[in-house]
Amino acid sequence: MPGSEVYVGFDLGGSSLKASSFSLDGELQERCSIDTQKCLRVEDYLNLFSEAANSLSSTKHLKGIGVAVAGILDLDAGKVVDSPNLPILCGVPLLEMLKDSFPPTPIHMMNDANAAAFGEYFAGAGEGHESMFILTLGTGIGGSFVQNGEILQGVSGMAGEIGHMVIEKNGKPCTCGSNGCLEAYFSSWALARDAKTHAEQHPDSPIGSSDEISPIFLAELAVSGDHAVRAIWENGGHALGVGIANIMNLLNPASIVLVGGLMNAKEHFLATAQRAWEANSFEQAHNSSKVLLGKLGEWAGVRGAIQPFVVK
Amino acid sequence: MPGSEVYVGFDLGGSSLKASSFSLDGELQERCSIDTQKCLRVEDYLNLFSEAANSLSSTKHLKGIGVAVAGILDLDAGKVVDSPNLPILCGVPLLEMLKDSFPPTPIHMMNDANAAAFGEYFAGAGEGHESMFILTLGTGIGGSFVQNGEILQGVSGMAGEIGHMVIEKNGKPCTCGSNGCLEAYFSSWALARDAKTHAEQHPDSPIGSSDEISPIFLAELAVSGDHAVRAIWENGGHALGVGIANIMNLLNPASIVLVGGLMNAKEHFLATAQRAWEANSFEQAHNSSKVLLGKLGEWAGVRGAIQPFVVK
Repeated sequence: MPGSEVYVGFDLGGSSLKASSFSLDGELQERCSIDTQKCLRVEDYLNLFSEAANSLSSTKHLKGIGVAVAGILDLDAGKVVDSPNLPILCGVPLLEMLKDSFPPTPIHMMNDANAAAFGEYFAGAGEGHESMFILTLGTGIGGSFVQNGEILQGVSGMAGEIGHMVIEKNGKPCTCGSNGCLEAYFSSWALARDAKTHAEQHPDSPIGSSDEISPIFLAELAVSGDHAVRAIWENGGHALGVGIANIMNLLNPASIVLVGGLMNAKEHFLATAQRAWEANSFEQAHNSSKVLLGKLGEWAGVRGAIQPFVVK
Repeated sequence: MPGSEVYVGFDLGGSSLKASSFSLDGELQERCSIDTQKCLRVEDYLNLFSEAANSLSSTKHLKGIGVAVAGILDLDAGKVVDSPNLPILCGVPLLEMLKDSFPPTPIHMMNDANAAAFGEYFAGAGEGHESMFILTLGTGIGGSFVQNGEILQGVSGMAGEIGHMVIEKNGKPCTCGSNGCLEAYFSSWALARDAKTHAEQHPDSPIGSSDEISPIFLAELAVSGDHAVRAIWENGGHALGVGIANIMNLLNPASIVLVGGLMNAKEHFLATAQRAWEANSFEQAHNSSKVLLGKLGEWAGVRGAIQPFVVK
C-alpha cells in the first residue's frame, strides 16, 4: 500500500539535525528539528537519527533514508572526511553505522550543499527547469550548478565556487588568499568589514553601538534609515548582481535561485543587484535566466537528501 | 570495405571554405582550403562544396558530410539565420540545398564555434577528458564548455560568453555596452586600444609608426624589446589569467584549451596569465584543471563537424 510507505530525509548541521518524512513521490509529510549541541559521541548522533526516523515513520514502512551532512564526504567509503562543524564525526564511517541502525533500509548520503541544491531543483524554485544555479548567501557565498538532474562537480570536485569568482581584479582581499572575489564584496563578513571601517571613520555612527556587526543588526540600521548602512548593502548588492550577470553570460541557466541567511535582508540589496545583472549581461541572457527566491528555506537539504529514491 | 569509405567535414567562414576527408573513426586523410571571396550567389558556394567533396572522396564512398558555418543557425530548419561574414547565405535553407547536391549522403550542420570546440574535445587537446572549456582568443574572446560530449548551450543558447565575464566591476568599457569584461582587457581590440592610448601619450613610441595596430605588429614590438608594449601584453595576460581562474573555480573542467589568433603571441602573455590563474583560484582547482594549447589550429572545425557521424 504506497500510502503507508515513507522516505525520511535528514540534514545534519553543526547545531541541529533536521528530519522530514516524505511520500514516495517526494511530497513533504512531517518534519522536526533536533538540537544536537549535547551530542558528545558518535552514538549520541546515531540515537537521534533513530529516534527521529521512528517518530516520523511510526506505523509506516520506512522505504529509504537520505542523509545530508555538512562536510566533505568520501561517498565511496561512506565516510565523513572533514567537517569543521561536526568534529566528532571526522573520519567516521557514518553510512555503515547508519545501515547497522536501520537494517535493511537503503540509505543514501550526500554533502549538505548538494542536498540543498537538489531540494530546490527537484521540489523548490528550480522545479521543472532543465538547469539551475543556486547561490547560497551567508557567512560565505556558495554555489552549485545543476543540469539535467546532475550537480556539476568538476574534475576534482571544486566546481561551483562562485564566492571566489573574481569580479574586481586586484580588488579587496578575500579570506581565501586571493583578491577581488565576490565574497569579499557581498557576504556577512564583507558587510561587517565595511560597516566596521565606516564606524571607525565616523565615531558617531550607530554601527559603533554594537559589539557584533551581524547582518540582522545592519538590516535594522538600514530600516531605521541609516544612509551609510544602506549604501553598504547597496554596494554589496551591486557586486552580487555582477556575479549573477557572470553566471547568466557563462552558463545561461534556466533559473538562478537565491537562498541563505542574507536573503532575510533582501529588500536592502536585491533591487540594486537586479540593476547590476541587467547592466552587465546580454539582454537575451538575463531575459531567459530567471532569478528566483528559494522556496524551501532551511528545509531544502532534507528534501534533496531523499531525491535518489524518488521515482521521477 | 571500410577503408574505402570517408566522411567529409567542411568549415565555411567569411573568406574560405575549409574541407577535410576523414576515415570512419575520425582520422584525418586529406584537406584543402578554398578562397570564397569570389562567391556572389548561393550557387557559387554550393559548387565549391561539390568540387571539394568530389576531390576529397574521389573513388571512395562518401558516407557522411559535416558542415560548420560561421553564423547563427536554425538547426531544426537547417537555415542560416544570421551571419555577418556570410551575408549571401542569410535566410538560406543551406542544409536542404546541400542535401539536394549530395543525394543520398546524410549531412549534419552546426555552428562553427561549436564545431571547433567539438574538434578539440574529441580529437585535439581535450581528447579523452570528461570536460573541457575552450577559449578562443582573437578579435573578441569566445568560449564553449563541453561536458560528456555535449556543449553547454544554456536555456536560450547564450552560454559560453566568457569574453563578457566581468573581471573588474565598473571597469573599462566593452563593445557589448557593459564595463569591465574580460574582452575589454584582453582581445585584439583591447590591446590595440591600450597601444593607441600609449602612443598618444608618447609620440616617440614606435607604436605610432603603423596605421594599423595589429596583434602581429604588437608582437613584433614586444620581440624588439619595447617595454611599454611588453607591459600591454602582460596586463592583458593578467586579465586572461583572472578569467581562467574564474573558470577553474566555477566549472573546474578537466582541461581549459586556448586557441585563436592571439595564441601566436603567447610568449608575451601566457606566463603572466599563469601567475594570475594560480594566484586567483584554489590550489586544488588549478592543479586539476589543466591549461592546454589547442592542437588542431584552424582545422578544428572540419574535424568537429563530422563528429556526429564518428563511431565512438
